[in-house]
Amino acid sequence: MTDSLVQIAREKLDQAVAILPHFEIDLWLTFARETSLGKDPSLDLIYPFDVTWHSAFLVHQSGDRTAILGRYDVENAESLGAFSKIVSYDESIRPALIEVLQEMEPKFLGLNFSVNDPAADGLTHGMKLYMDEVLEAAEISPDQVRSAEDFISSLRGQKTGTELEKIRQAVNTTQEIYGLVGEQIKPGVTERQLAQFMKDQVDQRGLDYAWDPLINPAVNTGPDSAIGHAAPSDLEIQPGHLVHFDFGVKQEGFCADLQRMWYVLRPDETEPPEEVLKAWTAVRKALLAGAKALTPGTHGYEVDKAARRSLTRRGFPEYLHGFGHHIGRVAHDGATILGPQWDRYGKTPEGLVEVDNVFAIELGVKVTDHGWVYLEENVRVLENELEWLSTPQTELALIHPE
Amino acid sequence: MTDSLVQIAREKLDQAVAILPHFEIDLWLTFARETSLGKDPSLDLIYPFDVTWHSAFLVHQSGDRTAILGRYDVENAESLGAFSKIVSYDESIRPALIEVLQEMEPKFLGLNFSVNDPAADGLTHGMKLYMDEVLEAAEISPDQVRSAEDFISSLRGQKTGTELEKIRQAVNTTQEIYGLVGEQIKPGVTERQLAQFMKDQVDQRGLDYAWDPLINPAVNTGPDSAIGHAAPSDLEIQPGHLVHFDFGVKQEGFCADLQRMWYVLRPDETEPPEEVLKAWTAVRKALLAGAKALTPGTHGYEVDKAARRSLTRRGFPEYLHGFGHHIGRVAHDGATILGPQWDRYGKTPEGLVEVDNVFAIELGVKVTDHGWVYLEENVRVLENELEWLSTPQTELALIHPE
Repeated sequence: MTDSLVQIAREKLDQAVAILPHFEIDLWLTFARETSLGKDPSLDLIYPFDVTWHSAFLVHQSGDRTAILGRYDVENAESLGAFSKIVSYDESIRPALIEVLQEMEPKFLGLNFSVNDPAADGLTHGMKLYMDEVLEAAEISPDQVRSAEDFISSLRGQKTGTELEKIRQAVNTTQEIYGLVGEQIKPGVTERQLAQFMKDQVDQRGLDYAWDPLINPAVNTGPDSAIGHAAPSDLEIQPGHLVHFDFGVKQEGFCADLQRMWYVLRPDETEPPEEVLKAWTAVRKALLAGAKALTPGTHGYEVDKAARRSLTRRGFPEYLHGFGHHIGRVAHDGATILGPQWDRYGKTPEGLVEVDNVFAIELGVKVTDHGWVYLEENVRVLENELEWLSTPQTELALIHPE
Repeated sequence: MTDSLVQIAREKLDQAVAILPHFEIDLWLTFARETSLGKDPSLDLIYPFDVTWHSAFLVHQSGDRTAILGRYDVENAESLGAFSKIVSYDESIRPALIEVLQEMEPKFLGLNFSVNDPAADGLTHGMKLYMDEVLEAAEISPDQVRSAEDFISSLRGQKTGTELEKIRQAVNTTQEIYGLVGEQIKPGVTERQLAQFMKDQVDQRGLDYAWDPLINPAVNTGPDSAIGHAAPSDLEIQPGHLVHFDFGVKQEGFCADLQRMWYVLRPDETEPPEEVLKAWTAVRKALLAGAKALTPGTHGYEVDKAARRSLTRRGFPEYLHGFGHHIGRVAHDGATILGPQWDRYGKTPEGLVEVDNVFAIELGVKVTDHGWVYLEENVRVLENELEWLSTPQTELALIHPE
C-alpha cells in the first residue's frame, strides 16, 4: 500500500509542475507541522509520510521542487526521490525558508487556503500568521500571496493512472459486497444487522471505510427510517419496504461511494406498487440527465441543474444536496461540487468539470408509505463520454416473499 | 470503542464548562466542515462524529452549549445528549450562527488558532476568513477575538477518568508486546524482521498505531542505524550492538509511546562494555532528574532543563529534541512541551505542568561502536508525585550469546 502512495506522490508532483503554468501562481507552497494531529489534504497528494516539525514543500513553475524539513524527517523525503532539493534544520525552519523564498523570487505565491473548498484549505490560521512573518522577512508582499484553490482543485481532481486504478479497485470491491448483501434482505432483519453483515465483509478483507463507519453503510428500510447521516437503527424490514444502502470501502487509500436499492414485495405483489416504480423511473432518468450534462468544461451547477430539472419536471421535490462530488482519497474529494449555488457550497459549484475527474453522482426521492428511492454511481469524465466505473443499477431489485 | 468516545466527549464538555472561567474568554467556538478531509483536533475532544457542512460548537461560561449543524448531522449531535441547544440548517449556517452569537453576546470569543500549539490550531485560514464576515455581521469586533490556545491546552492536557483508563490500557498492551519481542532479538535478525514481529502482534490484536506505522516501531541496531524518523532497515543485529525500539499502540482511540533497550553480549562478555554502562546510567539518571522536576506549576522548559543538565553534567551531548510531550489521542498530544525554548517549539515550553497531565518523557545518547541508548516512559502528574503508567526500564536488558 505504501508503495502505491509513494508512486502516486511522484505522479502528483510531476502533474503539479505540468499544470502550474495554467494558473496565476508561479510558486506553490504547502506549509505543515505535526501532521498526526491533522494533515493538510494537499500534503497527502504529494507527500505520503507524516511530518513532525514545521515543514515546507515548494513547487515552482520552473520544475524546481524543494522540501524543507526537521532533521528527523529528511530520510523519508529522500526516500521519495522526487525533490530536487531537500533542506534540513534543527532549531527553526525560519532562516532556511526565508532563504529559499528569496532565491525563488515568486511573482505570485499560492498558499493552501480557501473559503470555498475544504480540500484546498489545509493551512491553519496559526500557520498563516507564522507564514506572514516569514513572507515579510523574505520581502514578499501580501498582494503577491494568493489562494491556490483553483490549482489544487485541478491537481486533486484530475486523477493520475495509479489513482484511477485504485479507485476502480475500491468500486469493484464495494460492488462485490453489495452482491452479497442482497441475499440477507428479508422481513424481520434489522437495518443494524444488515450493516453488521457488510462491516464483517469489510473487516474480513482488511479494508477501511470510505467515510465514518458509524454511517457506512447507511441502511434505510421503509418510510420511518431517517435518511442522511444517521446510524442504522433497529427498524425491521417489512413487506412493502424500500431498502436503501449508501456504502463504500476505502482500499489502498482510495474510495468508492455507491447507493443501491431493493424493494420487498408484499405477499400479494408480483411487482412494486405504481408510485414506487414511478419514483424509481424518475430517479433513474434524472441520474442519466445529470450524467449526460457531465462533460469537460461544464460548470458544476449546470450538471446539477440538468438532474434537478429532470426530477422536478416529473413532479418530484428537489433533493436537498448536490448531485455529485469528486471521489478519491476521501468520499468528498474536494471542489468542483456538482451542486446548486447555495451558500454552504461556496463557489465550488462554479468550478469546471475536467477530463479524468471521478465523480459520485446521486439523487433520490421519498415515496410515502414505502421509503426512499436513491441511486448513486461512480463515473470518470473522458473527452467525449463518461466511463461508468460502477455497473449502474438499471432495475429496482426485488425481494420475493418466502 | 464508539461508546467510550461518546462518554469522553460528555466528560470533556463538562470539563470545558468547568475550566472556562479560569481563562480570559467567556465563549469558546469551534468551527468546522468536511471533517473527513481534516479535523480540528479540538473537535475530536468534544464531538466524536464527523461533520459534513459548516458546523459550529459553542461553549459558554454560563454552561450553555450550542451546536449548529447541517440537517443530516443533527441526529448524531442529538444522540450525544450533551448540547443544551441544537440548531439545524439546510442552505447556509450564516444566519443561524449570527443569531446565536448575538444572543450569547460574548465579551471575549476564543477561536481555535495558535502559532505555537498545533493541537489548538484547528481553524483553517479559509474558515477564519469566513468567520470574520460572520463576526462582523454579529457586531463582534476583532479585538474581542482571541486565541483559545491556553484554554485548549488545559482542556486537552487534563485527562478525564475515562481518558486515563484508555491510556493505561494502551501502555499495558504496548508493554505486553515489548515483553514478547525480547526473545526475538538475536544476531542475524534484521531491524525490519523485528518490526514485522511487533506489527503482527498489533494486527493480531486488531489495534491501531500511536503514530505512522512506517516508523512504529522504530528499530535501531548498532552504531550504523539512523535514529529518528526513519523506517527499520535490513541492518542485522550483531554481538556488541545496542538494540533500541520506539513503539506504541493506539487502543480504543488512545496512545502509548515507550522506548526500550537491549544489549547483545559478545561471546567473551558477561556484561556490557563500560562505555555502554556509563551511557545507560547517565540516561537513566537524567530521565529521573527530569521526572523529579515534573510537578504541577512548573514550566515545561524547566523540566527539560533538569534532564538536559543532568546529562551534560556527566559529559554527554545534549539530545536534539524536547524531554517530554503529552500523550493522549495522538502520541504528540499538544502543548505544554517539556522542551527547550527553541523557535520550532514556539511558546509551548512556557506552558505550566498541570495535575492529570500525561507525558511521555524520553532522552538518550549515542555510544560510538555500539549504538543508541534511549529510554522513554509514560507518567501521570499528580498533586505531590508522579504516577508511573509504564513499568520503568531500570536495567539494560541483555541478550546472551547462544
